[in-house]
Amino acid sequence: MKGRPKVNGERLLRRLSEFAEIGKTNAGGVNRQALSNEDRAARRLLADLATARGFKIFQDAIANLFIRREGRNAALPPMLIGSHLDSQPTGGRFDGALGTLAAFEVLEALEDAGHETEAAIEVVAWTNEEGSRFAPGVMGSMAFVGAAHPDDFQSVIASDGANFREELAATLAALPEAEMRPLGTLISAYLELHIEQGPSLEREGLAAGVVTAVQGTRWLTVTFSGSAGHAGTTSLAYRRDPMVAATAALNQLQISVMPQDEDARLTVGRFSVHPGSINAIPDRVTFTVDIRHPDAASLTAIEARVRAACEEAALSQRCSVEISTSFDMPPGSFSKVMTDRIEAAARALELPYKRMISGAFHDALFVARVVPAAMIFVPCRDGISHNEAEYVEPVDVINGARLLLEATMESVS
Amino acid sequence: MKGRPKVNGERLLRRLSEFAEIGKTNAGGVNRQALSNEDRAARRLLADLATARGFKIFQDAIANLFIRREGRNAALPPMLIGSHLDSQPTGGRFDGALGTLAAFEVLEALEDAGHETEAAIEVVAWTNEEGSRFAPGVMGSMAFVGAAHPDDFQSVIASDGANFREELAATLAALPEAEMRPLGTLISAYLELHIEQGPSLEREGLAAGVVTAVQGTRWLTVTFSGSAGHAGTTSLAYRRDPMVAATAALNQLQISVMPQDEDARLTVGRFSVHPGSINAIPDRVTFTVDIRHPDAASLTAIEARVRAACEEAALSQRCSVEISTSFDMPPGSFSKVMTDRIEAAARALELPYKRMISGAFHDALFVARVVPAAMIFVPCRDGISHNEAEYVEPVDVINGARLLLEATMESVS
Repeated sequence: MKGRPKVNGERLLRRLSEFAEIGKTNAGGVNRQALSNEDRAARRLLADLATARGFKIFQDAIANLFIRREGRNAALPPMLIGSHLDSQPTGGRFDGALGTLAAFEVLEALEDAGHETEAAIEVVAWTNEEGSRFAPGVMGSMAFVGAAHPDDFQSVIASDGANFREELAATLAALPEAEMRPLGTLISAYLELHIEQGPSLEREGLAAGVVTAVQGTRWLTVTFSGSAGHAGTTSLAYRRDPMVAATAALNQLQISVMPQDEDARLTVGRFSVHPGSINAIPDRVTFTVDIRHPDAASLTAIEARVRAACEEAALSQRCSVEISTSFDMPPGSFSKVMTDRIEAAARALELPYKRMISGAFHDALFVARVVPAAMIFVPCRDGISHNEAEYVEPVDVINGARLLLEATMESVS
Repeated sequence: MKGRPKVNGERLLRRLSEFAEIGKTNAGGVNRQALSNEDRAARRLLADLATARGFKIFQDAIANLFIRREGRNAALPPMLIGSHLDSQPTGGRFDGALGTLAAFEVLEALEDAGHETEAAIEVVAWTNEEGSRFAPGVMGSMAFVGAAHPDDFQSVIASDGANFREELAATLAALPEAEMRPLGTLISAYLELHIEQGPSLEREGLAAGVVTAVQGTRWLTVTFSGSAGHAGTTSLAYRRDPMVAATAALNQLQISVMPQDEDARLTVGRFSVHPGSINAIPDRVTFTVDIRHPDAASLTAIEARVRAACEEAALSQRCSVEISTSFDMPPGSFSKVMTDRIEAAARALELPYKRMISGAFHDALFVARVVPAAMIFVPCRDGISHNEAEYVEPVDVINGARLLLEATMESVS
């Protein structure tokens, strides 16, 4: 024994910089979307760091990457900690990477201190948390808990035209030294460190958030169909313009949903027009709607409002509309045992914290369906995330890792 | 002399079918965009038909294609007739092709009858009338009359990523037998036959429209810039969402501009979002606005309303907005001499007609700046154009060609 395990802050900050180089954008963010070459490069670096420390690495059928530090009793199910390595197309350096690398720092800190644990501890990097390149998100944790199967996603095509099946195979093949294991191996518990992706911790001057629940998310795809026509000659009476229907529906929703309910979120991140000619009335408009709410009933009510607004707008423009749900994650809450452990660790480390609800969905939400799980949030500057300007103060990075280390040790004894 | 020249309707309809095969779409329309392989294939076919009849072919620096039938007096400037061969991405079989092939039919009818004309007659196929692949449209006629120079378009990139300079060079090279001539050679007059692209002639049961003027067109490109953010965590107070600004501005314009002025046209044919992730608030939204009006002052007033609505929407969402004009064609009127000739021909042929204004812009509008010019419209079914369902009754095709032949002979004596 070399004394109590300690987070090596300098090492953790250096690792974050190393990973931020992979898919680095000119604006200082990262573009490291799921199952891309950049994603594979990040997995490769993490695998090499693990091997260098003598940890075993594993992959499952959806390319979730596991790094295992053995415990005294190999028969016990391991404690799982981690996050994801993939990013948004114009993403930040901390969303996912912080939780994954802080978890790896926990393993290294234990190793440095020669500290043995009863059960093994494993770090996980979940596949495709973001869902920006291949929808939906959190594929890896959904498959891990059996909420989905990799086969469900075989036909998914990326926003860049790539094919999910091929990119998944290429990603698995890129780590030949990783031992394949079945999906959903037994674990005892799960902890995930992540940036808040909102402004509250920073504004309240808190070091951490003990996340007790996650708001629900629903993704809709809306397609209005009308009739193409000449922009100069087609008078209003002869138009069936899906663009007019789409903007009418969206404007009505944007002035009502969020302004009337401060817990509601409604975002249109994709919008395409066919045929896309300056001087032709389009015949088809397709866009996505991302709806969030901590309350399941409210989430359903907002979806109903979206559908009603679109159907009304379609009718008024003599267009047709099709609405499909591509992703539906109900609100969920975390384990009291685990949140109590995080809270106890925060008190022990004398870090100011609060219990809070997550506005973003996370892999932990799915893992919480099968084992005790919880999350630790740390502040990020101005609450900015999914943005190249995303930033976390070094002191908050290190405190987050210290909290994760303490709560993890509490969980494996 | 073999008697008075006569349009060979069967031949003209066959030619239209032959050209409709080039770039044919599954829905029965054509995708033969400017300077594409399909456009080159159509030019090749027309050039071969011309050579087979012993006509000379020429090209100029912007690849306008000319087919010359000599007159008695080679010193006289030729009479020019024609239209364009390029189409919208989901275009119809008649928009452009009808006027070009009817003009070629005029040459063949004169040839069949062994009818000599004092001045030569030339058929023209103008380059890139549509402007759907390379903006702006009517490049060929603008360059011909000196309103623009091919160099002005060197840096234009196609909607499909192709490069204007390279595609222009490839198109010129594809007709090596065509003699190069300087831009804007002297001509005596210009006539163009085209489909109405609106419903009025069909509804009024008329065979032809004598076009006395063309409404003006202005193309704007609007870009709203805000701040990317996480769709789930960013509350309304922290959002600077360019999508909200864009839909607010567009909705306001769509419920006001056209409903308040039946001569006005406002169309949004292109719309793109950056970064285009389902769960990220976009940081940039760009769309085009096509404005039309027969009155120049009203055109300017509508542009001012678009700018005001966008600036107000940007302000309300704490976004910035940039608005640029990519194309500006003022309303224009045609030569009384030429419209009177068309009218006289319609009376002689006992075809019911009316004088009318064109809702679409045409190459003739630019040519009218330098020589007496006018247009003949024929009805198209339901006024549908820039649409694969575009259709013209055979009788209307043939009557249009007969009118063009008569008015052309009147002009060259």
